[in-house]
Amino acid sequence: MCDAEALVKSDNSDHPANMIPALCAKFWTLGWVTGTGGGCSIRDDDHVFIAPSGVQKELMKPEDIYVLSLSRTLSSSSRVYLRSPASYKPSQCTPLFLAAFTKRQAGCCIHTHSHWAVLVTLILEGRGESVFEINNIEQIKGFGKGFEKTGNLGYHDTLRIPVIENTAHEEDLTEFLEEAMDKYPDTYAVLVRRHGVYVWGDNVHKAKTQCESLDYLFQLAVEMKQLNIPWISDIPKVKTRREREAEAAQQ
Amino acid sequence: MCDAEALVKSDNSDHPANMIPALCAKFWTLGWVTGTGGGCSIRDDDHVFIAPSGVQKELMKPEDIYVLSLSRTLSSSSRVYLRSPASYKPSQCTPLFLAAFTKRQAGCCIHTHSHWAVLVTLILEGRGESVFEINNIEQIKGFGKGFEKTGNLGYHDTLRIPVIENTAHEEDLTEFLEEAMDKYPDTYAVLVRRHGVYVWGDNVHKAKTQCESLDYLFQLAVEMKQLNIPWISDIPKVKTRREREAEAAQQ
Amino acid sequence: MCDAEALVKSDNSDHPANMIPALCAKFWTLGWVTGTGGGCSIRDDDHVFIAPSGVQKELMKPEDIYVLSLSRTLSSSSRVYLRSPASYKPSQCTPLFLAAFTKRQAGCCIHTHSHWAVLVTLILEGRGESVFEINNIEQIKGFGKGFEKTGNLGYHDTLRIPVIENTAHEEDLTEFLEEAMDKYPDTYAVLVRRHGVYVWGDNVHKAKTQCESLDYLFQLAVEMKQLNIPWISDIPKVKTRREREAEAAQQ
Amino acid sequence: MCDAEALVKSDNSDHPANMIPALCAKFWTLGWVTGTGGGCSIRDDDHVFIAPSGVQKELMKPEDIYVLSLSRTLSSSSRVYLRSPASYKPSQCTPLFLAAFTKRQAGCCIHTHSHWAVLVTLILEGRGESVFEINNIEQIKGFGKGFEKTGNLGYHDTLRIPVIENTAHEEDLTEFLEEAMDKYPDTYAVLVRRHGVYVWGDNVHKAKTQCESLDYLFQLAVEMKQLNIPWISDIPKVKTRREREAEAAQQ
Repeated sequence: MCDAEALVKSDNSDHPANMIPALCAKFWTLGWVTGTGGGCSIRDDDHVFIAPSGVQKELMKPEDIYVLSLSRTLSSSSRVYLRSPASYKPSQCTPLFLAAFTKRQAGCCIHTHSHWAVLVTLILEGRGESVFEINNIEQIKGFGKGFEKTGNLGYHDTLRIPVIENTAHEEDLTEFLEEAMDKYPDTYAVLVRRHGVYVWGDNVHKAKTQCESLDYLFQLAVEMKQLNIPWISDIPKVKTRREREAEAAQQ
Repeated sequence: MCDAEALVKSDNSDHPANMIPALCAKFWTLGWVTGTGGGCSIRDDDHVFIAPSGVQKELMKPEDIYVLSLSRTLSSSSRVYLRSPASYKPSQCTPLFLAAFTKRQAGCCIHTHSHWAVLVTLILEGRGESVFEINNIEQIKGFGKGFEKTGNLGYHDTLRIPVIENTAHEEDLTEFLEEAMDKYPDTYAVLVRRHGVYVWGDNVHKAKTQCESLDYLFQLAVEMKQLNIPWISDIPKVKTRREREAEAAQQ
Repeated sequence: MCDAEALVKSDNSDHPANMIPALCAKFWTLGWVTGTGGGCSIRDDDHVFIAPSGVQKELMKPEDIYVLSLSRTLSSSSRVYLRSPASYKPSQCTPLFLAAFTKRQAGCCIHTHSHWAVLVTLILEGRGESVFEINNIEQIKGFGKGFEKTGNLGYHDTLRIPVIENTAHEEDLTEFLEEAMDKYPDTYAVLVRRHGVYVWGDNVHKAKTQCESLDYLFQLAVEMKQLNIPWISDIPKVKTRREREAEAAQQ
Repeated sequence: MCDAEALVKSDNSDHPANMIPALCAKFWTLGWVTGTGGGCSIRDDDHVFIAPSGVQKELMKPEDIYVLSLSRTLSSSSRVYLRSPASYKPSQCTPLFLAAFTKRQAGCCIHTHSHWAVLVTLILEGRGESVFEINNIEQIKGFGKGFEKTGNLGYHDTLRIPVIENTAHEEDLTEFLEEAMDKYPDTYAVLVRRHGVYVWGDNVHKAKTQCESLDYLFQLAVEMKQLNIPWISDIPKVKTRREREAEAAQQ
């Protein structure tokens, strides 16, 4: 086995080349990567593992995975692949995944075509808006506070996910994704109008659970819209007995 | 194997340390524990088995489980863990599970973030109401009549599930959950506004089937709302032939 | 192994005692038998195999199954069980299943709590109606023409499923189910208001595929209602080229 | 093993006789082939493999598959089967699958009863329309540009899927399907009013991923309708930085 092939061969189910097919198979059942749409990339130090373009996501195998050197790609004018599958093309999502890895030191980035995400961007389009905002929902706690910050968002915090307009060619999204990252430095996701969402995290666990929480919130938001319930509310903070007693003692 | 580890090692699939991962994996497919949300705890006599915080629920393993002594925890000022996993934190749901075990002698308590539960609390919020009420639906028979009572609710009975407001910190919910238990002594569940639901039962079977029945009713209730069908109805009791004949004979 | 136990022990996956657990596990994933609701019975000549009451349907095992003699039950004043599980109670659905076996010579009867079925009965209740009618949908072809008739319904035929009112006790439904069978002799299903549906067929294959087709139609009907599309339509029959040419030749 | 049986026996999971059952089982979980509805056919050079009529799609086995010679069927007045299963009838979809193979050189054709497809035809019926049109949705890129053309549709392109009226007998659809293929030579799918959809592709991969993408779009279209969002929009093309700079330089 030559060195390049060793990059995608491992008995460890946590190895990125095994993880990406397992994750994509799970995402397929969730409707996130229907019809070869969407994708997933994992960064292991300098190695970036990427699902190829046009593959049926629930049937992917470790040998289908590209491996790219992040540092050598950044210091050269084109992508440096350490390992390429025989019969595929690189994913058009590649520069978008790289943006999450280089600008946010992410360890994993997931791209879904979830129709909840698409519907949220369509609802916002009807309002002329380019940021999804929701607060006072417990699942918001599933998100970190932001880049290089510790801890998670709280129940009363407003989760904000910027929306960028879709481009004819997926690679052209990169500059707009980077702009959105600059404008919303603490976001872990960017919605793409009429297309889907990019979600990242420090590692696979965080990217995947943030992606799940976000899809949960998008679905809830669409259902709230159908029931005429606003996404942003002004809910008074509940006071515990101790807080009420402390207040009473002060007066 | 030291004593502590023996608490979560068993070949018996019904052992709580095997049961919790199996249940949580099933709940994940139902959308109840998305993105590390929700949880599950089983009490076996004095031993309380609890899923840890922040774990991907469909990937949990027996060795991830905490075991706590109920009696020693109750008689001391802090929780007494008989066994703790190496790399997790205790669930914030712990005091809420303990409330079900101590105040209701429950054998199992399940916490879901089911979006049907959340939507029901949002619909009720719009009406300024804090109790979910539904009657004349067959699935209501899936609930016991209440604490220390025998038998189940009937088709014409009204199922009432109180709603408590969500707190910024999950542990702070405990006093309000306990208050709701006191106010509705026969309930097997408490809804948490914009958050989810806690459901318990005398054993795993009852907690799980009541949780399923309740999620079924929440989903039905949301769909009824979308079709403008009220949750509470006044349906005349159907008389059987024998009852009609008996009435005729009396007149 | 005593004779009674032999009735539920077989290596053949098509044996009713193996079939019922396999079917019920599948039905659970479809949301038909949530929270111990619903059930399934298979008749093999004189032997009637029935899932017990109150069991988690996706966890059922062959040894949980009751076996009843149909002829001996009919000729006596009470049910004659040839084999009973140790720790369960007979299903309250038993007399309803028996009605399908005796009045319609069915080989299998399925009872679901599918919320699509319940919603259809609720929509009809709002209109003061007691029969579900739909026509001009391809899936209608999935139904047989009726008892002792050969062939299936056509695309333009109207499928009619009667609705009976729910009773406080499930067994009391029997007389109303039988009445509905008498009034609609060709139906393979009876809806129960606010409860679910009973579907039968000559054998497991027919009962199961008719139950699937019906659930498909109930779901479609609810979605049509939400889009203001009527269930009954007057669609002109499409003429094939040959028919058009034949007509032209005649004129 | 006689020659005919060898046609459906292979250890290769990519063999059409193994592929069709695997695909159909997957389609069953997607709700595409409920209650024996729908079907699938694969062409391997001159051999056409077809699922039989009336089979439970998730239970199909390689030995249930028909094999037909395409050339000998075309040059004779009736279908020439090289291999027939013992206990089934040929699918009524057969002439429709053959149309895709002969008129479009397709390698695989899938027929679903997906209720999203049916709902789209019902919404269009209400508008008196016979073609489904959608643009400016990323998933549109999942479709090839058309017969004997290379490349895929773009984001801003309009996907057009013709709708034909359903006939009482499925085989009678053939002439209308062929008419639609002639009128829309680049379509890879034809919707059938109140029935479902036929989707094909050069090979299994393309037929299946186009079918998934189409079902995704049908579902999205129904949800857009419920939210009053039109299917056709006039979205300005986003200009990249380079395009904006080039324009500025020209002025």
